[in-house]
Amino acid sequence: MQYKTIVLSEERNVTLTVMIQGTGGEFRSISERPAVLVIPGGGYRFCSDREADPVAAVYLKAGYHVFILRYSVGADARWPRPLEDYEEAMALIDAHADEWHVIREKIAVVGFSAGGHLAGAAATMAKRRPAAAVLGYAVLREETARELGCDIPAIPEHVDGDTCPCFLFATRSDSVVPIQNTLDMLNALNRFQTSFECHIYPYGPHGFSTGDPSIQSMDTIFPRRAEDWTADSVAFLRDLFGDFGARGMTEPVLRAHTNDDGMAWLSLDCSVGRIYGNPEARRVLADTIRHMRERIRPFTPEMSFEDMMQALGKMTLRELLTERGIDTDRLPELDAALRTVPNI
Amino acid sequence: MQYKTIVLSEERNVTLTVMIQGTGGEFRSISERPAVLVIPGGGYRFCSDREADPVAAVYLKAGYHVFILRYSVGADARWPRPLEDYEEAMALIDAHADEWHVIREKIAVVGFSAGGHLAGAAATMAKRRPAAAVLGYAVLREETARELGCDIPAIPEHVDGDTCPCFLFATRSDSVVPIQNTLDMLNALNRFQTSFECHIYPYGPHGFSTGDPSIQSMDTIFPRRAEDWTADSVAFLRDLFGDFGARGMTEPVLRAHTNDDGMAWLSLDCSVGRIYGNPEARRVLADTIRHMRERIRPFTPEMSFEDMMQALGKMTLRELLTERGIDTDRLPELDAALRTVPNI
Amino acid sequence: MQYKTIVLSEERNVTLTVMIQGTGGEFRSISERPAVLVIPGGGYRFCSDREADPVAAVYLKAGYHVFILRYSVGADARWPRPLEDYEEAMALIDAHADEWHVIREKIAVVGFSAGGHLAGAAATMAKRRPAAAVLGYAVLREETARELGCDIPAIPEHVDGDTCPCFLFATRSDSVVPIQNTLDMLNALNRFQTSFECHIYPYGPHGFSTGDPSIQSMDTIFPRRAEDWTADSVAFLRDLFGDFGARGMTEPVLRAHTNDDGMAWLSLDCSVGRIYGNPEARRVLADTIRHMRERIRPFTPEMSFEDMMQALGKMTLRELLTERGIDTDRLPELDAALRTVPNI
Amino acid sequence: MQYKTIVLSEERNVTLTVMIQGTGGEFRSISERPAVLVIPGGGYRFCSDREADPVAAVYLKAGYHVFILRYSVGADARWPRPLEDYEEAMALIDAHADEWHVIREKIAVVGFSAGGHLAGAAATMAKRRPAAAVLGYAVLREETARELGCDIPAIPEHVDGDTCPCFLFATRSDSVVPIQNTLDMLNALNRFQTSFECHIYPYGPHGFSTGDPSIQSMDTIFPRRAEDWTADSVAFLRDLFGDFGARGMTEPVLRAHTNDDGMAWLSLDCSVGRIYGNPEARRVLADTIRHMRERIRPFTPEMSFEDMMQALGKMTLRELLTERGIDTDRLPELDAALRTVPNI
Repeated sequence: MQYKTIVLSEERNVTLTVMIQGTGGEFRSISERPAVLVIPGGGYRFCSDREADPVAAVYLKAGYHVFILRYSVGADARWPRPLEDYEEAMALIDAHADEWHVIREKIAVVGFSAGGHLAGAAATMAKRRPAAAVLGYAVLREETARELGCDIPAIPEHVDGDTCPCFLFATRSDSVVPIQNTLDMLNALNRFQTSFECHIYPYGPHGFSTGDPSIQSMDTIFPRRAEDWTADSVAFLRDLFGDFGARGMTEPVLRAHTNDDGMAWLSLDCSVGRIYGNPEARRVLADTIRHMRERIRPFTPEMSFEDMMQALGKMTLRELLTERGIDTDRLPELDAALRTVPNI
Repeated sequence: MQYKTIVLSEERNVTLTVMIQGTGGEFRSISERPAVLVIPGGGYRFCSDREADPVAAVYLKAGYHVFILRYSVGADARWPRPLEDYEEAMALIDAHADEWHVIREKIAVVGFSAGGHLAGAAATMAKRRPAAAVLGYAVLREETARELGCDIPAIPEHVDGDTCPCFLFATRSDSVVPIQNTLDMLNALNRFQTSFECHIYPYGPHGFSTGDPSIQSMDTIFPRRAEDWTADSVAFLRDLFGDFGARGMTEPVLRAHTNDDGMAWLSLDCSVGRIYGNPEARRVLADTIRHMRERIRPFTPEMSFEDMMQALGKMTLRELLTERGIDTDRLPELDAALRTVPNI
Repeated sequence: MQYKTIVLSEERNVTLTVMIQGTGGEFRSISERPAVLVIPGGGYRFCSDREADPVAAVYLKAGYHVFILRYSVGADARWPRPLEDYEEAMALIDAHADEWHVIREKIAVVGFSAGGHLAGAAATMAKRRPAAAVLGYAVLREETARELGCDIPAIPEHVDGDTCPCFLFATRSDSVVPIQNTLDMLNALNRFQTSFECHIYPYGPHGFSTGDPSIQSMDTIFPRRAEDWTADSVAFLRDLFGDFGARGMTEPVLRAHTNDDGMAWLSLDCSVGRIYGNPEARRVLADTIRHMRERIRPFTPEMSFEDMMQALGKMTLRELLTERGIDTDRLPELDAALRTVPNI
Repeated sequence: MQYKTIVLSEERNVTLTVMIQGTGGEFRSISERPAVLVIPGGGYRFCSDREADPVAAVYLKAGYHVFILRYSVGADARWPRPLEDYEEAMALIDAHADEWHVIREKIAVVGFSAGGHLAGAAATMAKRRPAAAVLGYAVLREETARELGCDIPAIPEHVDGDTCPCFLFATRSDSVVPIQNTLDMLNALNRFQTSFECHIYPYGPHGFSTGDPSIQSMDTIFPRRAEDWTADSVAFLRDLFGDFGARGMTEPVLRAHTNDDGMAWLSLDCSVGRIYGNPEARRVLADTIRHMRERIRPFTPEMSFEDMMQALGKMTLRELLTERGIDTDRLPELDAALRTVPNI
């Protein structure tokens, strides 16, 4: 492992710790690796060591390169300074990506508390957006930020169609950052059909980091299963980035969006409801719709085919046709046809 | 194990399957057991076997008695018939609680999809409410119910101060019951400071039950970690009901509400913000507040004590005093004093 | 689930509890299921309920049919009575296999303590042998049996080439059944190249069954990870029996023997050492051996090819050729040729 | 984290990589930490990177300091050179223990394959012995060493009363280092009543390191549960070293020996059999034995008290008295009395 600390700003004490794992040789088919950028919390007043090295270990074990960003805090933290620190770190990683064997388009941010705010800002407002964001008991709402004495933007309202998939975790009884922060983010992500995973544990203190007993001792009232977020977040990143395979990274199983309803043109990955509600799309798919009428039995005799389309309306058309075995050999052709229809 | 099926309504095919585990003897200090009532899904059109026996096995292994309710479906399902079936089942269990060694106040419902709707109704509207509810990819919103052709009440808007703690799980990409159902419920529970746990997995089909490969085969695109909800839900119930100890059930570690802000009188378990915002409470706690002024250092020099009380305002006063070691020997006395102050 | 108790012997109080899960319908491609026969312990003096229903729940959740055998104990236990009870139970299951949708060749025994002795006897001496055996803190040595006052045969010395794969678990500090019982069995299985899995936890009492807190309370000194044997044993059975797939049971990944060195004729699944040590085999494989000489580089320059064959001698020839990509398109032909060579 | 590489021998390329985690400050009550010394494998021909950094990450996450020893290999590996490298590394750690906040008596070795041989040698022959040893698919038998072309001592025959507790794991079908290596070590440890934990998975290749997909890709035939050894080994070390508590390290729950039968004088932690077989001990404990006669009921009417003492003979006397509630208030006094009796 290469290990070094690069100073991004001496006066503001901004640093990037770099942990680069081996490639090739003993590591066989691994010629480059995904990476995570860990962003510790500390109320924008300091950067907590509890949320630095122990977190790095999680992703090192999973085969990822790891970076730790210690950003501007205290008097230096005036927004958007921390976000600029993030941008600088990402630019530096990008510049060294070949040398360090980093897969540029597979870099996730992992932030905690105030660091979760910064990770959330990276996911929604940055010029160089990450490909995934892990947000741990993150400060996301304006009200919470204000109560903590921070003048920083709310994150949920900045979620947009380009926001990356997010993994959120927190304890429901967190008395420093109320759980509503996480709930608001879930609602915002859902509005844009952005993929997410979420684990909310019913109790336990703020700031538990990995939840390992070396961080959160066995003497505290803490649900031990809250340690599971670490393995779950690794699995989430594998679903999204693909896994290490015998011949390079495997295909991801998780898409960034649950459907393509937010795109400019229709496709098979739009929802059945969206497609069926578009007259032009119905015209283009006339044959397929006739096959569907023949093959899809309504739940009840009195249900019309139109009602049935509404009941199944959240599935993508690709899912529906595949599941029912309708026109499966024509899928590429149907997709191409739909991509000529404006999504209006 | 005693195993039998009791017919609640022959004409509507409503049954209660009863699985009663041993007590005493080999089971030593276990003289009675908590129970779960499993409520399978099936769109109020049938009761799915996939969500019956395999689910029962989860809670049998955990030492709980298990009941399975097969309720009115299809033409018999007109609301509130299914809820009445639930009430009848609970009345029957209550009547046999001594004989079956069931701990009356430790009965949870575990419902899936439409059965999750019924479990949610039990938690919010029933005469005999359960002590906990596990809601799996549950139908909860009116819009979703309507699309599925069911004329049933929305659950989130019926959440009240008596709603039991809930454990929710679902897949984010569920195309039958959109994830917004679960999100709305979380928001509603949070409004009443009701305890909850929640696991949302990023993809996977509706109706995965336990997620075991015998239900959701290895050939399907499904995140294997979604099986974890079973163990997590058992842990949640143990947190809430206490665990089997050498001398009966142990003390629970999870309270039904994260604080007592919703109660008629103040207490040490109300939030600091709630207490500090009440002039009468400030008067009653004058000494303690003076100690807090001396001992609690604001985050920044320019922060006032009042701002600090707001920053810490989500903690209960009990947590704050305990964590900082302030007046810890006077806690019972302070609690008694606060309980004389109306919560207004 | 069908649930009933069949009396095998009224006078000796021998019973078989039958738990048959659903097939077809909701369970789609599952038309029949593997099964386990649970054999509780109790020193051949009684049958412990702690090792009956809670264990059944483990395998029910995994999709298996479950049977519980309560065999002859106390004055009725004179050997081989208990083994005859086992034979009778297996005969009965066999007779009902079609009706109950049991896969005849995929029945495992799961025994504990003295029940582990009986399961071990089934695996090594029975007429109807199981396809796998799970042996929990089992009595296997003669010395231990004698100390416990039982006149029963030692199991390790009865292991033979037909003994099924075994999964063993125990605590190292077991003061009722010393760990040497398990160690002796591992050595015996290894002598016959029989597949096994083994988990020995460093402390904890005898008789912990599933290890669930409802059996082994949180108040006892017990390593909670010892609960993992339940999930591990299910995984072991899946490896051996195949898993539930979209089109019936999938192919097993675990073979009953690590190689075929114990068979009457050679094959590609014999070890390289066995094959290379047989002059007739060397003649039959002359071309392949020439290719190996060209392609397999010794670890050190001074190492001869013959030494290298010894160093790799534990691999099967199939593994070696596959890994090194030698004559891989001729494997069926080479296997056929070897099967003409007596294994002497 | 401090990270550096110290050269122990330039000419033989022997190095110690040092990873020191923070103490105090954010890490509160943690003023010093246990440590592990990772010893990669490679047949004494090289040191495998696969068994270096990824393994370090496991123990870093658990809060331990980590050292990686790259020892003499190839032409430099003539025994006991590698063991001398180990001694030098341990001496260096000892010399810096205060500076690095290492708990001197809580250092474990973690070795793989040939590195497992070196770790085993450290545990049985070194001047500075570790407090625990984790041995992964380790070369331990002479026969195996010889087949791999290594002239090194067998480990099991060097096990003695001072050998530390061991955690062993391997795959049963390992075709490079046969499972008999691990089995022989278990038998040797048991002869000295030394504590151990063991996990043998039924298949999978040699050299799987952590088993993470980044090491052992999802394309290989490998039981994913074999990854569990990492968490299990951490739990084993916690049992043995104590865990991080709110006031320093907690008390260990696992003793180095299952009983004190190997000590020079008797004690309550000797086995009942050992004590009862010693006439002098029977005299010293006359009262207690009378109480036992009154309170301990034989399994069967015809069983004598002497037979019963044999049946319970593997328990320590402390366990037996505690479990049956006999003379529990006199335990210190009884222990003192026994410690005057030579263990002959």
